[in-house]
Amino acid sequence: MTEWWREPARASDGAARDAARKRQESLTKPPGSLGRLEDVALRLAGMQGSARPALERVRIAVFAADHGIAAEGVSAFPQSVTVEMVRNFVRGGAAVSVLARALGASLEVVDVGTASDPGPLPGVVSCRAGVGTANFRRGPAMERSQLEVCLRAGRAAAERAVADGIQLFIGGEMGIANTTAAAAVACALLDIPAERVAGPGTGLDRAGVRHKAAVVEEALRLHAGGFSDPLEVLRRVGGFEIAALTGAYIACAQAGIPVLVDGFITSVAALAAVRLNAGVAPWLLYSHRSAEPGHDLVLEALAARPLLDLGMRLGEGSGAAVAVPLLRLALDLHNRMATFAEAGISGG
Amino acid sequence: MTEWWREPARASDGAARDAARKRQESLTKPPGSLGRLEDVALRLAGMQGSARPALERVRIAVFAADHGIAAEGVSAFPQSVTVEMVRNFVRGGAAVSVLARALGASLEVVDVGTASDPGPLPGVVSCRAGVGTANFRRGPAMERSQLEVCLRAGRAAAERAVADGIQLFIGGEMGIANTTAAAAVACALLDIPAERVAGPGTGLDRAGVRHKAAVVEEALRLHAGGFSDPLEVLRRVGGFEIAALTGAYIACAQAGIPVLVDGFITSVAALAAVRLNAGVAPWLLYSHRSAEPGHDLVLEALAARPLLDLGMRLGEGSGAAVAVPLLRLALDLHNRMATFAEAGISGG
Repeated sequence: MTEWWREPARASDGAARDAARKRQESLTKPPGSLGRLEDVALRLAGMQGSARPALERVRIAVFAADHGIAAEGVSAFPQSVTVEMVRNFVRGGAAVSVLARALGASLEVVDVGTASDPGPLPGVVSCRAGVGTANFRRGPAMERSQLEVCLRAGRAAAERAVADGIQLFIGGEMGIANTTAAAAVACALLDIPAERVAGPGTGLDRAGVRHKAAVVEEALRLHAGGFSDPLEVLRRVGGFEIAALTGAYIACAQAGIPVLVDGFITSVAALAAVRLNAGVAPWLLYSHRSAEPGHDLVLEALAARPLLDLGMRLGEGSGAAVAVPLLRLALDLHNRMATFAEAGISGG
Repeated sequence: MTEWWREPARASDGAARDAARKRQESLTKPPGSLGRLEDVALRLAGMQGSARPALERVRIAVFAADHGIAAEGVSAFPQSVTVEMVRNFVRGGAAVSVLARALGASLEVVDVGTASDPGPLPGVVSCRAGVGTANFRRGPAMERSQLEVCLRAGRAAAERAVADGIQLFIGGEMGIANTTAAAAVACALLDIPAERVAGPGTGLDRAGVRHKAAVVEEALRLHAGGFSDPLEVLRRVGGFEIAALTGAYIACAQAGIPVLVDGFITSVAALAAVRLNAGVAPWLLYSHRSAEPGHDLVLEALAARPLLDLGMRLGEGSGAAVAVPLLRLALDLHNRMATFAEAGISGG
């Protein structure tokens, strides 16, 4: 199928949402007093087509890849860490592994192109588009064929989620230097200078951030005129995992699976997804505001208001995972509270 | 024992906190990348005296009482709702009941003086200081003896928590018109005018909020000169449940039980507690920023930065309950992530 990413997203179910709103108005609490938890319940009701939505089966798919731009010295960690962290994910020692266990969420790691092939590992799906991207300060990060491999890797993750009856999809990412690629994509999509988006990532100092901004700015100059559409942006200055997340979000929206977006890098993928297919937007919930400074601009462009603001900046899907209990409690309240009539309470 | 509330709070364990910090620095993540979740883990380590703190046993104690000030038409709901909600709490239909079940937290309701005695109810502890407070626009809300009954009711709740090995104490409240009493206490403690603190509570319109502010302002004038110390503030314009929460927070700090403060009314009780006994402050964690406008000023006075800002304004302890999973996940991450050495990862 060509250009599958342009196929329409599923429509939200207005009748289910209305039924959920009616139920919510009858619950034993002052109207609106649960704040944003009430909105969350109504949105999930519309997305799941049920007045009593549920979030038992949650999938966290972490897309891992390497970045040629790492050669420019834009990260505090060596590139070898990407594969080392892939092993840490599936062995259960990483933040997202601990969170997935605590939430009872299923965790899968998708290798879309780390610098060295880790070989077959239980819990890792191999969809490699290459041995990391090329250095986008010198030329395009990837070929068109590699981009399509990544988009399909994301779609395949959404298809596995459908097959497993997943009720909420979280995409995570791991890739040394991927805040640099994400910053470049954000700058190209939003037409803003690198200095407004480049941040410390895993821990650059001030000089490091300045260098990173300069590298992104040079890359934007090199590719200027080539950003003809969001796919060309992803191809020229993106990353394999960013493209895969874009594909996953689009395919989730097409399949009717609610998505909980994580932090800076995943929000950049969400922005690319919405630019490619505007119908994706209603399927995206936003979990947290990252400490990475570029996140604010991307969230603003998406008209997104995340639930949490805890100064997190780890990636891996960790911020989204931390927000899952809020969504679940929102639904517990929605589904399990007594109505005024049931409780025999005045003023309902 | 006289003036038990002045006895010193327990000291936090600096060695445990240092050991926890050392562990945190060794975990497989960029330093600081879990943001405020890292601070939470360190604070709980210090409070629990363990480098690996735990939050399995959580208590939610909801203090219920009525308010003579309700006669001034300051609430959107009739006073009968207080007792009706007490029944709803223990039958399992209220928001806090649903949340306690979802969290596996134990819920107890403490009747410190509803307008009508609900009689013996399973799950309700009766520590009644009267049939609601007197109307504090006409005179003091309560006698000194009633105030002491309430403080002791709070202390008794903390003692039950100690006996049950509770690792985190949440106080909640229910009482028609209690945002009016809380506003009056906040104004008296912070020396600010009522119009800056009075808010819609369960749902007053703009005219209702103006009337409520006028009622509080009149009461403040009536009692001016009588606010000699925080206890006199509580006695003159407080409420039974507010005083009980104050006693509970102090007794938890004395016993070394971490407290998670809920919203506006409980934060006012926390402010009274800290004014009575400054050593209480390190034992208080703040869960959420309420939509009730006076909350900001009280939080500022407490130098408190809550974890959540979801526009909630229900009370009952519901905002604190919603934040419990964040604390638990913070500890899961702290206790269960692999170290750089364990995972064989570069850059640790």
